[in-house]
Amino acid sequence: MKFYDCATAPSPRRVRIFLAEKGIELETIQVDLAKGEQFSEEYKAINPLGEVPLLALDDGSTISQVNAICRYLEELYPDIPLHGRNPVERAQVESSNSQIQANGLSAVAEAFRNASPGFKHRAMPGPHDYEQIPQLAERGLLRLDNLFSDLNSHLAASQYIIGDYFSVADITALTTVDFAKWVKKRIPEDCVNLQRWHDQVSGRPSAKA
Amino acid sequence: MKFYDCATAPSPRRVRIFLAEKGIELETIQVDLAKGEQFSEEYKAINPLGEVPLLALDDGSTISQVNAICRYLEELYPDIPLHGRNPVERAQVESSNSQIQANGLSAVAEAFRNASPGFKHRAMPGPHDYEQIPQLAERGLLRLDNLFSDLNSHLAASQYIIGDYFSVADITALTTVDFAKWVKKRIPEDCVNLQRWHDQVSGRPSAKA
Repeated sequence: MKFYDCATAPSPRRVRIFLAEKGIELETIQVDLAKGEQFSEEYKAINPLGEVPLLALDDGSTISQVNAICRYLEELYPDIPLHGRNPVERAQVESSNSQIQANGLSAVAEAFRNASPGFKHRAMPGPHDYEQIPQLAERGLLRLDNLFSDLNSHLAASQYIIGDYFSVADITALTTVDFAKWVKKRIPEDCVNLQRWHDQVSGRPSAKA
Repeated sequence: MKFYDCATAPSPRRVRIFLAEKGIELETIQVDLAKGEQFSEEYKAINPLGEVPLLALDDGSTISQVNAICRYLEELYPDIPLHGRNPVERAQVESSNSQIQANGLSAVAEAFRNASPGFKHRAMPGPHDYEQIPQLAERGLLRLDNLFSDLNSHLAASQYIIGDYFSVADITALTTVDFAKWVKKRIPEDCVNLQRWHDQVSGRPSAKA
């Protein structure tokens, strides 16, 4: 099994933190997104979507998308479950993780890719080219303000995203908050609960991944 | 357990098709989105996000988000699995479902909500107001063209989205193609594989849901 990673990119970082929390070590191959290696013929033969992360299995099949990779690894390495410990908790993790991805990670990506000169014609990841929409960059920043505020309210009464249980939803939220620095957004000073949570999850050894 | 639904809306339709495929019958409460019932004090006390679908459990807890609801129901009713039958297939279903949701359902929603007079100030679902971005409506239509073309290529060699196995990825794709009619997008004539698949999945009794 091989893990195709890019050490500087936020999406594969979610998998790196997941691996670190589980204590899983995988053969890892770096794909340098800054150099456009994801669009090389060599890499596109492995992943036609031209995206990282990717998990290549020994039988030649591949798994793309962060959530799919993490779920597959959770089945292989069920110790220290990060997707929930019972049906209701698993549903809560899925729901929160999905919302933080949609309202957080996607918002940073919108703000970043629609405003960075390096992403002209490449406002979305994947195989198709899309033009930048400056208003979408602005909306991304606004959505981040709302996310910070919503997470701050939620974390007033919750240690982690799901009660006292650290899960993939925390990994997605941590990656979002750190990725937000790319668009110069930091946790507002009045979001003390979010800051407390961020200090706590950033202090875990996995956060260095 | 109660299922909060809106019979005319595409997101809860994914749950309705899932229930029909499994033969699950749930107490169902209609929330009329056209009348704005999702923003009533009564409904927001149940789901502060102001969204459907929602599953309300007998202990008072709730599960929001289509994928979380379907995963929870799959655990309760494991017969006729719709999320995959082994770890690799489950990862493939998760990956494809996630891509079709991001590149398909979201694209229709972008095209629809950013162009419909009824959604002025409400370009995104959820508790926060966002202004419409006309360019985003245009991009949504372009993304749908790409999705139709990509699915058509994929279905040249595959009966369903995942080989010969009908899964939630097919439910998401079917809902996307039918929802696309709301923005006047239909399967292009040259997409014969996609049309063959659509005829096939539309012929299942569950598609009436």
